[in-house]
Amino acid sequence: MPADGSSLDTRLIELGSEVDSWTRLLLEAEISHDAERFGGMLAYHLGWRDEALARLERPGGTGKKLRCGIALLTCEALTGLIAPAGGAAVALELVHNFSLVHDDIQDESDIRRHRPTVWKLWGVAQGINVGDALFALAQVALVRLSAEDVAARLLLELNRTCVRLVEGQYLDLAMQHEARVPSLAEYEGMIARKTAALFACAARLGAIAGGATLEQEEALAEFGYQLGLGFQEQDDVLGVWATEAETGKPVAADVGARKKGLPAVLALHGSAAPEWLRTLYLGPAALAPADVPRIVNAFEQAGVQAEAERRVEAHFALAREALSRVGLRGPSAELLQMLTRGLTGRKA
Amino acid sequence: MPADGSSLDTRLIELGSEVDSWTRLLLEAEISHDAERFGGMLAYHLGWRDEALARLERPGGTGKKLRCGIALLTCEALTGLIAPAGGAAVALELVHNFSLVHDDIQDESDIRRHRPTVWKLWGVAQGINVGDALFALAQVALVRLSAEDVAARLLLELNRTCVRLVEGQYLDLAMQHEARVPSLAEYEGMIARKTAALFACAARLGAIAGGATLEQEEALAEFGYQLGLGFQEQDDVLGVWATEAETGKPVAADVGARKKGLPAVLALHGSAAPEWLRTLYLGPAALAPADVPRIVNAFEQAGVQAEAERRVEAHFALAREALSRVGLRGPSAELLQMLTRGLTGRKA
Repeated sequence: MPADGSSLDTRLIELGSEVDSWTRLLLEAEISHDAERFGGMLAYHLGWRDEALARLERPGGTGKKLRCGIALLTCEALTGLIAPAGGAAVALELVHNFSLVHDDIQDESDIRRHRPTVWKLWGVAQGINVGDALFALAQVALVRLSAEDVAARLLLELNRTCVRLVEGQYLDLAMQHEARVPSLAEYEGMIARKTAALFACAARLGAIAGGATLEQEEALAEFGYQLGLGFQEQDDVLGVWATEAETGKPVAADVGARKKGLPAVLALHGSAAPEWLRTLYLGPAALAPADVPRIVNAFEQAGVQAEAERRVEAHFALAREALSRVGLRGPSAELLQMLTRGLTGRKA
Repeated sequence: MPADGSSLDTRLIELGSEVDSWTRLLLEAEISHDAERFGGMLAYHLGWRDEALARLERPGGTGKKLRCGIALLTCEALTGLIAPAGGAAVALELVHNFSLVHDDIQDESDIRRHRPTVWKLWGVAQGINVGDALFALAQVALVRLSAEDVAARLLLELNRTCVRLVEGQYLDLAMQHEARVPSLAEYEGMIARKTAALFACAARLGAIAGGATLEQEEALAEFGYQLGLGFQEQDDVLGVWATEAETGKPVAADVGARKKGLPAVLALHGSAAPEWLRTLYLGPAALAPADVPRIVNAFEQAGVQAEAERRVEAHFALAREALSRVGLRGPSAELLQMLTRGLTGRKA
């Protein structure tokens, strides 16, 4: 079966819905009956219930789940089976969702996946609780659904990654509040923790669960890491240059919010940027609607789009190179390879 | 060596400072250098640094650490050694502290251990991060410092307990916001999760690490559970009737804040309470200073203090009974037994 873009998407959705089922069973078993409303809030965030906490007939889920997909495909490429990485897959998605629930509070985001965020509906205090519960459940999943001889290693890797994740969140918040644009090194140090660490962890957990050699494990972790850097930088590019149809957000929303993503870092760090642009982007005064296209235009004049896309492609090339060192063959390995083509078909 | 109250206090402080040292080493190894300021925030909460994040010459620490003390004494009573429960002890204190940092945000508390709370100094967003990092580090500690053959079980028990903890926090917040007083059953269901579950877990982890039989493990968990219920209810009693010297807080602070602790539950649930008392305690109008002694007096008239103290003693008696079933001898077992005398010498 030759792998093409649509076969990757189909497989990711399949795997994601499998992980959804496992996660649902776990939550039903682990949340107490007298905290049922609380369990409903978790299920709301995961796309299984509506705002009134009624079960959705057609659960929205959370689309293609890249992190669990990477773990499961990695394990399948090594062993022909996805089951050994089942605990890792559920745990990775729960950790990802724990971080989203807390991120939304920290960034004061009102909307996630086209619906009000948890804290917006039930307040900051319960939003913190929902995130904490997802985090604890991730650990429970990893122990319950993993083979005994690898559980401790999987847990150590996952939680060290969580420390990195939280450090990344700390660095991101600190950067957004400073009246300067971070250097490229600072930016990459931040996204390495905030995004790439969990992608690297996903591939590593799949490798451990699949009995990889240490060399294979390291190469697979490098694959996930470069993939994560590429995805995050591509996300930053889309935040400036994608159409509304592609992202579901207003065009150049990240410029409107004056985010310090890759385009802003490339355009504004150092002394080359014009003073009016720095003042507009870093100043305390609110942006006028006409400022946004003016800023985007200045980014383009400075060659930022081309440079950013070149960087994204460089990360994907490193990911491919790492993957080829593992020496895997077969359809799952081909699908992993296809991930390095980036966000084609993956929007928002 | 006959065990008395001061020998228990001395031993708890000794064990607490041992756990502090292990925790410090863990944090130094696990937090990245370029997030050093973030590591400083964790160290501030743990009492090792001041508000400017400078190292304290005489770290305040966090006094007697009951949860890790229970785990270590349990293991020592079983084996003569504390080391097998080292990972559990560090993890229990980190989990307890994670929950305190998030609680302070949820309750909007400004002061913790006589110092400004983390969120008060660095904002809600970083407060959430500090709690999340302590939680992830608890897992890392448990894996790194435990024997391989018990690590997975310890992790499963700890994280199921964390789900209970967060459920308890959810129930507590929900109760505080309702315009009614919970029933005794609802109140006990809440503190069972919010406090007793972690005490039960502490004894259970010590039992598992110490190679207890299943019968011993269950009896020790019951010991910790009843101890936790007793401590929490005694805390609620002190929140109304202790002197300022004993708690470091204004007299009857919990009445001033109209908390729905044990005294309020006993005085106000059901139909026996006078209408003026219900209106004052549950109404939207702020309390006048003179209302507080009037309410305390009404609690006393209704026999609430005596009833609450009777309940506390009943939990401690059940804890003693469970402990005696384990059949342990020696000084560590005597110290565990002494814990069931309650908060003597433990203030605030």
